[in-house]
Amino acid sequence: MTSTNVLTIDTINPHVRTAEYAVRGVIPQRAEQYRATLAKGEGKDLPFDQVIFANIGNPQQLDQKPITFFRQVVSLLEWPDLLEKEDALIGLGYKKDAIARARTLLKEVKSVGAYSNSSGAPGIKQSVADFIERRDGYSADPAHIYLSAGASSGVNTLLNVISSSPSTGILVPIPQYPLYTATLAVLNTKCVPYYLDESKAWGTNLEIIKKSLDDARAEGTEVKAIVIINPGNPTGASLSEDDVKAVLKLAAEEKLVVMADEVYQTNVFIGKFSSFKKCLRDLQKEESGKYDHIELASLHSVSKGMVGECGHRGGYFELVGFDPKVEAEIYKFISIMLCPPVVGQCMVELMTNPPKEGEESYEQYKQEYDGTYEGLKKRANALFDAFKKMEGVSCQDPQGAMYLFPSITLPQKAQEAAKEEKMSADQFYCIKLLDSTGICVIPGSGFGQAEGTLHFRTTFLPPGTEWVGRIADFHKKFMDEYR
Amino acid sequence: MTSTNVLTIDTINPHVRTAEYAVRGVIPQRAEQYRATLAKGEGKDLPFDQVIFANIGNPQQLDQKPITFFRQVVSLLEWPDLLEKEDALIGLGYKKDAIARARTLLKEVKSVGAYSNSSGAPGIKQSVADFIERRDGYSADPAHIYLSAGASSGVNTLLNVISSSPSTGILVPIPQYPLYTATLAVLNTKCVPYYLDESKAWGTNLEIIKKSLDDARAEGTEVKAIVIINPGNPTGASLSEDDVKAVLKLAAEEKLVVMADEVYQTNVFIGKFSSFKKCLRDLQKEESGKYDHIELASLHSVSKGMVGECGHRGGYFELVGFDPKVEAEIYKFISIMLCPPVVGQCMVELMTNPPKEGEESYEQYKQEYDGTYEGLKKRANALFDAFKKMEGVSCQDPQGAMYLFPSITLPQKAQEAAKEEKMSADQFYCIKLLDSTGICVIPGSGFGQAEGTLHFRTTFLPPGTEWVGRIADFHKKFMDEYR
Repeated sequence: MTSTNVLTIDTINPHVRTAEYAVRGVIPQRAEQYRATLAKGEGKDLPFDQVIFANIGNPQQLDQKPITFFRQVVSLLEWPDLLEKEDALIGLGYKKDAIARARTLLKEVKSVGAYSNSSGAPGIKQSVADFIERRDGYSADPAHIYLSAGASSGVNTLLNVISSSPSTGILVPIPQYPLYTATLAVLNTKCVPYYLDESKAWGTNLEIIKKSLDDARAEGTEVKAIVIINPGNPTGASLSEDDVKAVLKLAAEEKLVVMADEVYQTNVFIGKFSSFKKCLRDLQKEESGKYDHIELASLHSVSKGMVGECGHRGGYFELVGFDPKVEAEIYKFISIMLCPPVVGQCMVELMTNPPKEGEESYEQYKQEYDGTYEGLKKRANALFDAFKKMEGVSCQDPQGAMYLFPSITLPQKAQEAAKEEKMSADQFYCIKLLDSTGICVIPGSGFGQAEGTLHFRTTFLPPGTEWVGRIADFHKKFMDEYR
Repeated sequence: MTSTNVLTIDTINPHVRTAEYAVRGVIPQRAEQYRATLAKGEGKDLPFDQVIFANIGNPQQLDQKPITFFRQVVSLLEWPDLLEKEDALIGLGYKKDAIARARTLLKEVKSVGAYSNSSGAPGIKQSVADFIERRDGYSADPAHIYLSAGASSGVNTLLNVISSSPSTGILVPIPQYPLYTATLAVLNTKCVPYYLDESKAWGTNLEIIKKSLDDARAEGTEVKAIVIINPGNPTGASLSEDDVKAVLKLAAEEKLVVMADEVYQTNVFIGKFSSFKKCLRDLQKEESGKYDHIELASLHSVSKGMVGECGHRGGYFELVGFDPKVEAEIYKFISIMLCPPVVGQCMVELMTNPPKEGEESYEQYKQEYDGTYEGLKKRANALFDAFKKMEGVSCQDPQGAMYLFPSITLPQKAQEAAKEEKMSADQFYCIKLLDSTGICVIPGSGFGQAEGTLHFRTTFLPPGTEWVGRIADFHKKFMDEYR
């Protein structure tokens, strides 16, 4: 059939072909096959009886429970007839504030089955603005807030608008979440990599960024923007306020749009999250006029944090300092896809406007939220402790996000075996890990890593610690085999 | 601020700038301003007290009620704790089959807050395949079904993959739904327009298509695909089986990928919907070997029909005859956005696997479904009857979809007045209609129309017929004023 097809691997969009997205690539697909085999009651000869998906930050596919208040509200939005039976609802465990919130949101969207405004329902954008104001201590304007289908679709929008020609370049951290490199590949826009400093807990290093920028500009690349992922994915790094301000100062000097991917803002275990928006407003206050021209887009999502509602595809981005005509183009661009999922928008509202102290649902909300937070922290540390004990493995302290990104040093013999199978050594290691234990992690090469180094990314979401022991056992055997 | 910005109207992606999307353009934005004014209790001097959004097929923002069975199931998916209290649920009006379906779907997705496989949850794809099989009488394979965030995102995926260079061309009907031209503009791919035949109820005219194709190819455009919207948007046309087969034959001869936008497949009032998939299988059976190489993508959605769940952003596309390597690239492309909204996927499952005769929810489902269908048909005809009586207006029979697309002949003086305000005459007419009545419709120029003709698109979704009378009154005054 292939030879007569209009569309073949050689005739489709070459930029789609070039894009790589390891987080859902060959290793996860192989893991999915194992899962399907086991689900059918087959695969008795496999050395494991379940697959552990540590390849992707998908909290509710693993152990993380949804927040009851959020789900109570949304269940009422889906079948509003229930609102006519308030007494029965209370008997079922619905809290009064959940019922009230459902009424408010329904008034706002009319039906979760109706399209909203393309940038989101006005009242929901207002809740987001109020949240940002509380978080940062600086005002936020709903007119510059755009709801999106998860943060991914916001990133897609912004990169589409910024990419004006094949010579456009965007500074992207390495290692990075491959959404960035994949989208830039599709758009035929240059990814200008800047390496994060592993020796300094994967922090930003201004000199390295500056050098990447200068080199790219010297080669004729029009570098227009810098992406920062804070807390870091896959690194788990959490930037200090000074680090954030240093990046903003560089952006001001070098005329770079700042894209701050802040989806892990509540997953912080060491230090404190400092938003780019707050740091920008601080700088603007400290030195009047000097930072007024900075263009900042900051993104957030309901997929991560203690919310973990990835499947609902909710998110938003806030624009600061953008030209109104450019914002009009952004609005037009997103309107082509009509609107983000309305239930996802409602999840954004709930995330940004959760129950307050004194309200009926507050205690349960706080208990659930704190329980998830402490659970994640505990697991992160358990995994970190295990990595510390493994031969040839080093790992930065778990500061934030949902991942650890240990560095692994593999014996020469393992590297040669990988080469023979036409794989990178980290890919070889991760496939062996999957085949031996059913644990699915992603090789560092899927995120980018400094030449000559090897890593893998694992989430610390799977429940229990038994699987951590399995990684340690596998690692020991692997090292022994290839020593 | 503008002069120091990195991103200005002149430095952003020029292809984003070029894109036009009238369905959410200046007229709807003006309507939204009127709505906001009235909502605040202001605008006492306006000649209307409510805005009627007939600009977009957004059923649940207007009168269309969601299907109870669907919403019952989804409310349980959102708060699964309810499933532990089955007796209380039944007291609240939940049907047993809705409860059972919620259990099945939860088992499939684990949580609606978790990411699914990028092409959709396997069990949901199976329901879609079964639906296609029942509809067409030919088998369908879930491996070639891709869930999407509404049909729009499926169209975006397919156009991204097909567009291999700026010389790629795609045949698009004119008038068309502007998703196509807007996406092609963003991708810098050539839209090769072919006009629909207004004199034949907006049907496809093979000679016209062939001429457009030949002309484009003669100019060096590599025409790779043809888009058909059936039933038509904005035209409301419903193609016969012979028309569909004729397009398929042309596609086979001319080596064109067929993109069949079939989102209005249940909105058919005259004749019967014939899917491209069924017609293709018929042709393949009739003449062995001759049509085996056709590549067909057919799209469907939960947004339209009697479901009308636009806000949930659910849809799917089925691929037939695609090269497996190309399908692998499509999978990779969609995986960059992780997965379509999981609740939207569940809506697709419910749409394609609704209650069956004999099941507890069937009677209510059928009643709701038929009620919505009959209501739409009645309103379509009421609007059509009104248009027939209006001076200088002609309109094709309402065959399907959610729209009428009447042709209007405006006096010379009106055309001159439009020119003075730097508008097209149909835009001028639609703005006057909005300003005088609060009724928002979209000028034909937003969809494309033959040179020298003028149209507008209106949905027939708004409840009642009073607004139809207001259009007629406005039209009479407008004609008198500019005669």
